[in-house]
Amino acid sequence: MLSKSQISFVKSLHQKKFRTEHSLFIVEGLKSVQEFLHSDYIIDTIYYNEIVMPKLGNLSQKIKMQQISSADLDRISALTTPQQVLALVKIPQINSFNLQQLAGNFSLALDGIQDPGNLGTIIRTADWFGIKNIICSVDTVEIYNPKVVQASMGSLPRINVVYGDLNSILKKCLVPVYGALLDGKSIYNTNFGTEGIVVLGNEGKGIRTENIDLIQMPVTIPLFGKAESLNVAISAAIFCSEIKRNFLK
Amino acid sequence: MLSKSQISFVKSLHQKKFRTEHSLFIVEGLKSVQEFLHSDYIIDTIYYNEIVMPKLGNLSQKIKMQQISSADLDRISALTTPQQVLALVKIPQINSFNLQQLAGNFSLALDGIQDPGNLGTIIRTADWFGIKNIICSVDTVEIYNPKVVQASMGSLPRINVVYGDLNSILKKCLVPVYGALLDGKSIYNTNFGTEGIVVLGNEGKGIRTENIDLIQMPVTIPLFGKAESLNVAISAAIFCSEIKRNFLK
Repeated sequence: MLSKSQISFVKSLHQKKFRTEHSLFIVEGLKSVQEFLHSDYIIDTIYYNEIVMPKLGNLSQKIKMQQISSADLDRISALTTPQQVLALVKIPQINSFNLQQLAGNFSLALDGIQDPGNLGTIIRTADWFGIKNIICSVDTVEIYNPKVVQASMGSLPRINVVYGDLNSILKKCLVPVYGALLDGKSIYNTNFGTEGIVVLGNEGKGIRTENIDLIQMPVTIPLFGKAESLNVAISAAIFCSEIKRNFLK
Repeated sequence: MLSKSQISFVKSLHQKKFRTEHSLFIVEGLKSVQEFLHSDYIIDTIYYNEIVMPKLGNLSQKIKMQQISSADLDRISALTTPQQVLALVKIPQINSFNLQQLAGNFSLALDGIQDPGNLGTIIRTADWFGIKNIICSVDTVEIYNPKVVQASMGSLPRINVVYGDLNSILKKCLVPVYGALLDGKSIYNTNFGTEGIVVLGNEGKGIRTENIDLIQMPVTIPLFGKAESLNVAISAAIFCSEIKRNFLK
């Protein structure tokens, strides 16, 4: 059984302020926890119920393990549908970001994405398409938000997500800068090369003007119907698909 | 100001049971409400705050209008971020579904999609790509769920969404049946013709075996990285994009 102070400690990690203070974030669900166990991330604690215990396998002795009731898992969960296992994972030291990493590959740049479900889905989609780097403006939603972790479905450990001054990164980078805009060249007629960055904008406001100015190739997903816009994770996926399609040619 | 009974009436519509009982559903946000105002749907009531009033324009005299405080809008909202306007819209009589409608076009078939955000995003995406019909198995999440309406971003009135016995529809339909599966032909090498249905499965379980058996063309989005699966709305979007890409050739 969890003590009141344990419950309130885990629940505090639903908030960014306390995640930063304690350098810990929450990962829920067997599949996601297993992905983190097989990664370079350091797991601090695993809370699990009896159903999931046999599926966790042999674990490092350094991980604090505690079997708790489903009721207690409900109490500490950050999700509307709580899972059978919840892990506290250490937030890694921020990797020093190196512009060289962008050479020879495609990367995504996110300019102020706010919805955690969108960011998580973009991470999962990038992992499907083998896109390794995602560069986020500093006001993009935090990757350790429990809803981002949930929507990324275990892909987060495989993707290098960095936060920084997007404008200065776009200015300095040596690869072509593509942007998802409404008045660009059709994505179906765009010849993506072997490297580049694709900039995607905020859900409501799009890409900031100062960053639009740095886009060398504005690209548009043609409209065939009447919707006003596409969800940003959907746009990101269609870009990833078209880029990889070009690789196969 | 809203009375207690008005508040509890609107809040009851957050639940499917009461939406069915009263044949009403909730639409929130100026953009979405405007799309419904310009459609064949019948608006019963609009609750709005003073900020949004001038933007609603000239409305039919049959619509009950009530200006309320932002605090009252918060009370009746089904969203985590309440909007400045909330409408109660009549659920239309179910259109008799006609297999002829599928001829000459592409349609989507959803086999047990559970997440309202996914269904709403699929509707919005279909509207972008000019896909008119979405056929849902009876256990697919209800389109009048407030989160579906929200995620569809005003596209719902333009898309014909029908619920029915998917297995029997797939058996009787006269157009080619494509399916999003993990072991099919690469989507990049698939020559989509001018008509067909694309079957997409439940978030966890995929397409039911009985429906897989009716798929004539299993199609796969190739994996370039290490994710185990794609979000179903992402898969739907990549199918819509590839189908329309073929039309442009």
